[in-house]
Amino acid sequence: MIKVAINGYGTVGKRVADAVAAQPDMEIVGVSKTRPSFEAFVAKERGFPLYIADLSKKGAFDKLGLSVAGSVEEMLKKADVIVDATPGGIGKENLPLYKKLGKKAIFQGGEDHELAGFSFNSDCNYRDAIGRQFVRVVSCNTTGLCRMINLMDKAFGVSKVRATMVRRASDPGEVKKGPVDAVVLDPVTVPSHHGPDVQTVLPHIDITTMAMIVPTTFMHMHAVQMEVKKPATKEAILNLIEAHPRIGLVRPGTGIKSTAELKEYAMDLGRPRSDLWESCVFADSIGVIGGKDVYFFQAIHQEADIVVENVDAIRAMMGTVKDAAESVRMTNAALKFTAI
Amino acid sequence: MIKVAINGYGTVGKRVADAVAAQPDMEIVGVSKTRPSFEAFVAKERGFPLYIADLSKKGAFDKLGLSVAGSVEEMLKKADVIVDATPGGIGKENLPLYKKLGKKAIFQGGEDHELAGFSFNSDCNYRDAIGRQFVRVVSCNTTGLCRMINLMDKAFGVSKVRATMVRRASDPGEVKKGPVDAVVLDPVTVPSHHGPDVQTVLPHIDITTMAMIVPTTFMHMHAVQMEVKKPATKEAILNLIEAHPRIGLVRPGTGIKSTAELKEYAMDLGRPRSDLWESCVFADSIGVIGGKDVYFFQAIHQEADIVVENVDAIRAMMGTVKDAAESVRMTNAALKFTAI
Amino acid sequence: MIKVAINGYGTVGKRVADAVAAQPDMEIVGVSKTRPSFEAFVAKERGFPLYIADLSKKGAFDKLGLSVAGSVEEMLKKADVIVDATPGGIGKENLPLYKKLGKKAIFQGGEDHELAGFSFNSDCNYRDAIGRQFVRVVSCNTTGLCRMINLMDKAFGVSKVRATMVRRASDPGEVKKGPVDAVVLDPVTVPSHHGPDVQTVLPHIDITTMAMIVPTTFMHMHAVQMEVKKPATKEAILNLIEAHPRIGLVRPGTGIKSTAELKEYAMDLGRPRSDLWESCVFADSIGVIGGKDVYFFQAIHQEADIVVENVDAIRAMMGTVKDAAESVRMTNAALKFTAI
Amino acid sequence: MIKVAINGYGTVGKRVADAVAAQPDMEIVGVSKTRPSFEAFVAKERGFPLYIADLSKKGAFDKLGLSVAGSVEEMLKKADVIVDATPGGIGKENLPLYKKLGKKAIFQGGEDHELAGFSFNSDCNYRDAIGRQFVRVVSCNTTGLCRMINLMDKAFGVSKVRATMVRRASDPGEVKKGPVDAVVLDPVTVPSHHGPDVQTVLPHIDITTMAMIVPTTFMHMHAVQMEVKKPATKEAILNLIEAHPRIGLVRPGTGIKSTAELKEYAMDLGRPRSDLWESCVFADSIGVIGGKDVYFFQAIHQEADIVVENVDAIRAMMGTVKDAAESVRMTNAALKFTAI
Repeated sequence: MIKVAINGYGTVGKRVADAVAAQPDMEIVGVSKTRPSFEAFVAKERGFPLYIADLSKKGAFDKLGLSVAGSVEEMLKKADVIVDATPGGIGKENLPLYKKLGKKAIFQGGEDHELAGFSFNSDCNYRDAIGRQFVRVVSCNTTGLCRMINLMDKAFGVSKVRATMVRRASDPGEVKKGPVDAVVLDPVTVPSHHGPDVQTVLPHIDITTMAMIVPTTFMHMHAVQMEVKKPATKEAILNLIEAHPRIGLVRPGTGIKSTAELKEYAMDLGRPRSDLWESCVFADSIGVIGGKDVYFFQAIHQEADIVVENVDAIRAMMGTVKDAAESVRMTNAALKFTAI
Repeated sequence: MIKVAINGYGTVGKRVADAVAAQPDMEIVGVSKTRPSFEAFVAKERGFPLYIADLSKKGAFDKLGLSVAGSVEEMLKKADVIVDATPGGIGKENLPLYKKLGKKAIFQGGEDHELAGFSFNSDCNYRDAIGRQFVRVVSCNTTGLCRMINLMDKAFGVSKVRATMVRRASDPGEVKKGPVDAVVLDPVTVPSHHGPDVQTVLPHIDITTMAMIVPTTFMHMHAVQMEVKKPATKEAILNLIEAHPRIGLVRPGTGIKSTAELKEYAMDLGRPRSDLWESCVFADSIGVIGGKDVYFFQAIHQEADIVVENVDAIRAMMGTVKDAAESVRMTNAALKFTAI
Repeated sequence: MIKVAINGYGTVGKRVADAVAAQPDMEIVGVSKTRPSFEAFVAKERGFPLYIADLSKKGAFDKLGLSVAGSVEEMLKKADVIVDATPGGIGKENLPLYKKLGKKAIFQGGEDHELAGFSFNSDCNYRDAIGRQFVRVVSCNTTGLCRMINLMDKAFGVSKVRATMVRRASDPGEVKKGPVDAVVLDPVTVPSHHGPDVQTVLPHIDITTMAMIVPTTFMHMHAVQMEVKKPATKEAILNLIEAHPRIGLVRPGTGIKSTAELKEYAMDLGRPRSDLWESCVFADSIGVIGGKDVYFFQAIHQEADIVVENVDAIRAMMGTVKDAAESVRMTNAALKFTAI
Repeated sequence: MIKVAINGYGTVGKRVADAVAAQPDMEIVGVSKTRPSFEAFVAKERGFPLYIADLSKKGAFDKLGLSVAGSVEEMLKKADVIVDATPGGIGKENLPLYKKLGKKAIFQGGEDHELAGFSFNSDCNYRDAIGRQFVRVVSCNTTGLCRMINLMDKAFGVSKVRATMVRRASDPGEVKKGPVDAVVLDPVTVPSHHGPDVQTVLPHIDITTMAMIVPTTFMHMHAVQMEVKKPATKEAILNLIEAHPRIGLVRPGTGIKSTAELKEYAMDLGRPRSDLWESCVFADSIGVIGGKDVYFFQAIHQEADIVVENVDAIRAMMGTVKDAAESVRMTNAALKFTAI
């Protein structure tokens, strides 16, 4: 059993913890919080040992009936791999401690590529992660882009990608961030960081991205255009997606035309937290003009698609499973990940 | 086993169907749709026989791999009780058919009290529903008001209620309704219909309500003020709520201050569809001024609180369980309804 | 003085009415409403004679102190040109009456191109509108696209346009339309109607558009990519925009990164109704990759950019000003339209 | 001419500056900014001398063509009265400087009552402000409550006020604050600070308030209930409001039922920045139950209602106009403030 510690039990951390706990070859040795919150009660309900950054705050947890197992450093020592799911920028502060303890650690997309020196996507570079001490799982948007670009590149050769990322303003449970009523260019300048971030995983891809933020909490939406080298057809692309374990098709028969309906569907299907771990390509949106100019919309569940990538990264770093497809199969099966 | 048909498999119907299917003494004989949608796929996934209003549309369902069991009338004939979960106003159109077939039927709060001649709330008037052919389960807001008013009235005597209902604009998966950026008075006039609606269940209560709509999809929020006859204390009210099977306390230790965080907590706890069947009273908001002037906030999950009331109403109408508390206990237990 | 009737005094009609009234060579002979509303009071305050569709409703207007000048048909008879600013699809119903009366009429972008047989944009085809009886002013989004495409095409030759239109869900004062929290693909299929609509004005342009709706009320946002034939530079593009009377630059020094801040700036500058009649290109967003691949963001004020096009269309149809640039100059000057 | 400096040229400051500049007995000697923004361009366009907090940043302004007149301290020295419109909490930091310079200063409602030792509302305590060095104009919500409570108290005697304040999440041009999709209790506890804040102006009023934040940018909405001592009628209350110079009636004939429509109406009427300086009571919402239980909704434009109070406070502090009604008349007349 691979022993995993979750450093930062928030939006991403709590999902990775549940996904890890569901795997046959992994177990959670602990999760960490900095201060009491409803998520600490969730950890308790799950039976995850709770560790805290600052033991002087133990009293505040005790008072609420939340038993503290020890300090974060104690937790880290018990782990084979640490999943650092702290807010962007904190991973950088934690790195020296991981080095000191000689532990393997996974960082999230909020950290710079340089921090880990390796940016991970299960489809694209699983093998290159085998045995590494530090790995960065790229962000939800970059993950979503990499999956489709890599799939199309292998099948048709991708000569140019242009994507507009329309990003949700905040996660549903996050009530301080806005905007309430605006489209915010983030950044105003073109390209946005997403293009170069894709290139940390797929360096040979020519990609330009534009990004904005809109007042919604449910999923990012990508409007993607690709120029391909070999002629493609809509049917061929549909078949490729059908066969891919982490890209789902939103089918016209469902009547789903929006992120909110898609999340409702995932909820109705009983997915834990209504999570969509797969990229969700709208089947009806796939258009091929002149054989080489491909268009589609895909919705990306910001809180979920990276969760399964973290699980795979653990196996790659530990070297227990050498084949990407095998790890993906194990991860998906453990989550009872079935088609949307 | 009580045989239940769900006429209208949408936001309410799909929840009632799952809750009924979870009961030890009930089974679903069918659910109905008017046209294909993702919810029809959900019915298929659940194994609920799917009936349709207009058999000439069967082809459209077939084409999508959705097998149609027959017409709505055929479904109704198989049922002991029909839960009519059609959009507001359609129940009225369906009543003659239910009468013709001699079937018991439950209507939702979108219909007028007069349609069924009896408005139901498990806490307040379960016994009066025993053996009835037609029952109307009051709306989510009225249900939420009735629970707390009845609880307080029994303990302290309620001489006057004033409540402001801040209503969510649309359900999360409903993308056509607004507003996007406005507070809409609905209605402008005072009182809103909620006060009189409470009086269909609790006729002796003096209540005045004001209502508005705000651009959110997560839960209604009630700002409630009650004048009570016997002096009350915050502690006494907290104890009453703790002992109530359908009113939950949002505790300060969770740090939850909003509807969105509350829904996130329900999601993290693994509730099906993140549903909050209980009224959610914010513990910290309970204030008692001068012993007789009581204030509190409660959040009401519009899609969920009436679901459990529908289940109880089925038992009452069938007369299989004579005691409200016993039905509530059974309903809650089957849903693994545990404290928030 | 050109006599203008505004048939439909709503979001667009009230703006065109004010813009027409400000011109030295035009006057308003009347505006029409179907039922009383705050906009009828605005018409009264402006001194515009108010006509109504159904004279049997005159009493309802009288009761509110709104004097009715007569029927819509009476109004139309007084006009040289009718601006039909009724909701999409109603223009089609009105056409036979305009024909019967032998009047010139302008339709809005909500009507099909075929209705008028000619789609208008001041920059692109003013001359072709001279003397026409019927003209359709293209929609706000199409107007915004045409301005930049035409400008770039004349300077560099445009070989391909790909644009993603992120559309506001409703106008600020419109409280029934949603979504509240979703990105809605509208349509799911690619291309959206915007590309073909641009081609009603600029038939030789190769353009593919994708469109979605987001929950904001302030302006549409376009993410645009163009391939040009002659090499372009950011500086050259900035100079072209600076010289254009209907395209404004959002300058980095203002710190404006969103639609909401841009509208606030227009408000602070004292623009009537905070209207932005110009397309608003974000200067910092203009990117040129490899000389021929151009990117930029532009914000389009849905309620305003077509207003000035309507005014020009009036002059073209009447034939009183033969030169587009001269009409644009007159229209802008009358509105005291100064740079953002 | 009273010389006025605006320290903090943001949402409130820019409005007070324009209102002051419109008065016959006042002039603006300068406005201050900490860093360049579009509002600095607005100051330039208005011709207000621009002063900056940190002269080392002068270069950044110069580069944008924004000429800097000097330091904030230089500006303050030129003034008879300073309007401190800095963000909440900064006024406290500025007080020692105002004392050192021996200048009169007005603070906004974001500062504590104790800072100025006197909380101002034109209707309630103008006379008590005469000659004072420091005055705090209460917040937009408190101003709105004071106006109606004072009016009702003088006419009928108010024995108890209960109000629920449904607050807009952010100003329209403010894009960082949320929530996007939530009702946030702010605070969870009852009463909110608004009741005690009303009592800084009207100490004898018994008032309890509850407050929440909703995702809208247009106006706060108050659901108010008052118990009065002498019997009231709806007609009498309507007459009182009609006669009040700073409370407007939203009349049923306009069809206005929301904050967004109300702002649209103000925009159409040509109000500068679409500002509603008056409290806006919905005529149809006024209900009187049993003669002594009064209900109504009022919308409060968060950015505007305090602007006119600041102008009056200047006159009171300078002692140039001794009568509140006379100052209110002057302020309103200068703004061409006419009935909604």
